[in-house]
Amino acid sequence: MRMYDVIKRKRDGFELTSEEIIYFVAGYSDGSIPDYQASALAMAIFYQGMNARETAALTMAMAVSGDTVDLSPIPGIKVDKHSTGGVGDKTSLAVVPMVAACGVPVAKMSGRGLGHTGGTLDKLESIPGLSISIDEQRFFDIVNSVGCAIIGQTANLVPADKRLYALRDVTATVDSIPLIASSVMSKKIAAGADAIVLDVKCGSGAFMKTADDAIELAQAMVDIGEEVERTTIALVTDMDRPLGNKVGNSLEVIEAVEVLKNTAPADISETCLELAANMLLLAGKGTLQECRELARRSIESGAAFEKLCQMVEAQGGDSSVLRDTTRFAQAPFSEQLLAPCDGYVFHMNTEQVGIAAAALGAGRETIEDSIDPAAGIDLARKTGAAVKAGDVLATLYSSDREKLREGAQLLLGAYDIRNEKPATIPHFLARVTKKGVERLA
Amino acid sequence: MRMYDVIKRKRDGFELTSEEIIYFVAGYSDGSIPDYQASALAMAIFYQGMNARETAALTMAMAVSGDTVDLSPIPGIKVDKHSTGGVGDKTSLAVVPMVAACGVPVAKMSGRGLGHTGGTLDKLESIPGLSISIDEQRFFDIVNSVGCAIIGQTANLVPADKRLYALRDVTATVDSIPLIASSVMSKKIAAGADAIVLDVKCGSGAFMKTADDAIELAQAMVDIGEEVERTTIALVTDMDRPLGNKVGNSLEVIEAVEVLKNTAPADISETCLELAANMLLLAGKGTLQECRELARRSIESGAAFEKLCQMVEAQGGDSSVLRDTTRFAQAPFSEQLLAPCDGYVFHMNTEQVGIAAAALGAGRETIEDSIDPAAGIDLARKTGAAVKAGDVLATLYSSDREKLREGAQLLLGAYDIRNEKPATIPHFLARVTKKGVERLA
Repeated sequence: MRMYDVIKRKRDGFELTSEEIIYFVAGYSDGSIPDYQASALAMAIFYQGMNARETAALTMAMAVSGDTVDLSPIPGIKVDKHSTGGVGDKTSLAVVPMVAACGVPVAKMSGRGLGHTGGTLDKLESIPGLSISIDEQRFFDIVNSVGCAIIGQTANLVPADKRLYALRDVTATVDSIPLIASSVMSKKIAAGADAIVLDVKCGSGAFMKTADDAIELAQAMVDIGEEVERTTIALVTDMDRPLGNKVGNSLEVIEAVEVLKNTAPADISETCLELAANMLLLAGKGTLQECRELARRSIESGAAFEKLCQMVEAQGGDSSVLRDTTRFAQAPFSEQLLAPCDGYVFHMNTEQVGIAAAALGAGRETIEDSIDPAAGIDLARKTGAAVKAGDVLATLYSSDREKLREGAQLLLGAYDIRNEKPATIPHFLARVTKKGVERLA
Repeated sequence: MRMYDVIKRKRDGFELTSEEIIYFVAGYSDGSIPDYQASALAMAIFYQGMNARETAALTMAMAVSGDTVDLSPIPGIKVDKHSTGGVGDKTSLAVVPMVAACGVPVAKMSGRGLGHTGGTLDKLESIPGLSISIDEQRFFDIVNSVGCAIIGQTANLVPADKRLYALRDVTATVDSIPLIASSVMSKKIAAGADAIVLDVKCGSGAFMKTADDAIELAQAMVDIGEEVERTTIALVTDMDRPLGNKVGNSLEVIEAVEVLKNTAPADISETCLELAANMLLLAGKGTLQECRELARRSIESGAAFEKLCQMVEAQGGDSSVLRDTTRFAQAPFSEQLLAPCDGYVFHMNTEQVGIAAAALGAGRETIEDSIDPAAGIDLARKTGAAVKAGDVLATLYSSDREKLREGAQLLLGAYDIRNEKPATIPHFLARVTKKGVERLA
């Protein structure tokens, strides 16, 4: 087999065999296939696409390219959860303890933030003492005793995807549905998931800008799950405005606590409930309606919040900051962003909200940058809100006065205030299962 | 400017600016743009194409990427000639002295053979003593005194094309019309041509398999010529059977001598006449009809043959082998390939004829391989010929008995003998000038 022929066949619109796909991934991983052939193939895939079988073959070939996690020491069906990324997305912090509180173990590996999107690990690390570097045995022990844990990915998880993603990032071949879908799913499968719930974001703060594109990606991932026998459900949810009101690391932990205390804004609360319900469904806890009820009760009973505290403590963290969130380290500087005129918040450039938060110190541009855990944004007005000149749009926090100014300027630019009231944006756009696409809006 | 954006813009079907193209070629040449970005761009160009302006910009950016030849020490319009490559194509050896004999100087740089196609330099070097490594001053002196010279390209001619071509060769991005066209034209322009006559081959022995593809390539190159003010004419000619009867190095020199002595087969003789006439036309020697007459007379008068002898002597070669071609070194082994059955030569896989000649020792697989100058094939029957079982199809020559056997087997496989008489193949398919495409068949 020659890589040249693999590229040429895909270039000319032929379906690649699983052997060809395995040959590519193995050769690219061991360095025998160079970057310049991989990028040519990626561009050919960008134009020609891949069918469900090819995409599944690529997913599995990448999933086994490095270490894989065997979750069998943890009894039961292990359901993983993944979000395609957005601004203010703190769902994992609430959903994981909710599901665990319902008796379904969750052994979750998460990532760090980069660019305009935050990462669960960075958020968790704003809790004093908490460690995300935990060895496998201890990870299993925590899940078996507490019911859940969230740790960092092992360094050698899906190295083929890591290498290919870095290449795609500099060769304009990121936005290809089969490549995105296989990248996401390979990591979930390598991390040991039996079943997967996906939150595919859509809108100005997400990678997918339109509902159709997001649904297509959701469908591709559900199809992979079907092909490789990991039942997968995808929710397509709005990211045309930030999720919840808080953006930043300790700020998002605080809002996750609010979800578990039933005091959070509706959009984030409902998203967490729906994600948890679908995870419980895949774990066999009843019908979707029954699972929604289970999830709701885990909050109302306080069990989910207690589960979060237990998990944090098991990972070495100080849970007192969760019980009294005013004990989180405070940013030394804050500033209110005021509405410059009367009108409605007509639209928010949500990616720019994320960029503003990163500029305040909440995010990183390169993987080496450090994070300011207290930096971030608390939004008082989001899309649809009526405002008068001088009303508070948001409060910004930072440890750096200069960054505060920069962040405020960026955030102001993210607001489009007009006389016109915008159409209501539905939060849930679609639910995609192996049975098909159910459009919700 | 970022290479990422250049790739993305081409990927999405936008026209690249000249600045973007120059940025790419300069960066790729100096190593600041890596292979993996260049191959992604090449694949995007494969799908999205390039218009005449972009192709011309790419051509000029590559042309100036290394040394360029300034032919101004040679008076008059310098017309270059290029063939896109085929089997048995010895036209330069005859055309260059024909044109020079008509008073138009020809300062030609040629290449070596690779794969199934031969190279003018390898053919010339079968003449004892002849050198193709001649410095620029001596090159000009020979052209100014004799009227013509054919030498090797300087090492640093169009390095950007050399690097890009090697990359395209392993990333399945060779067969893109704008990339092929700019590769050819950049070399002609760097070599100092004022005007260019192209012989675009078409058929089983050529890169372009169909007349439509060949005409499209011809048109692209003529368009580049127009954009960069090097008037270009392209003839699209048949390469669905070998050109002439002889394939191999000294064998092809012998057939070129036959052209100049007016004893060669019609296809090669007519091709040489037509190419020479078009070169004379571009040099301002009269109408095409007058130039055809000039070219014909250069043969009938013996002037063209004398010009070849003078050029060979000026380049240190022994012209006595041209005056008596039996003095060429003979291959120690030869074998006749006989027709296995009655019928017609219905088709020839011409590429395979070239591969058979290479297997005999006439060609090379890698640039380091050495050449057997006497090895090759003398075809007695080509497409259209009626044969009886036992008739001689061809005589094969080699210095190696083993290679003789291998070559014979390959050559037999190149013949498709059937009861049916094939349709006559026209030799000249089209002539493309700035005025448009004139279909000749």
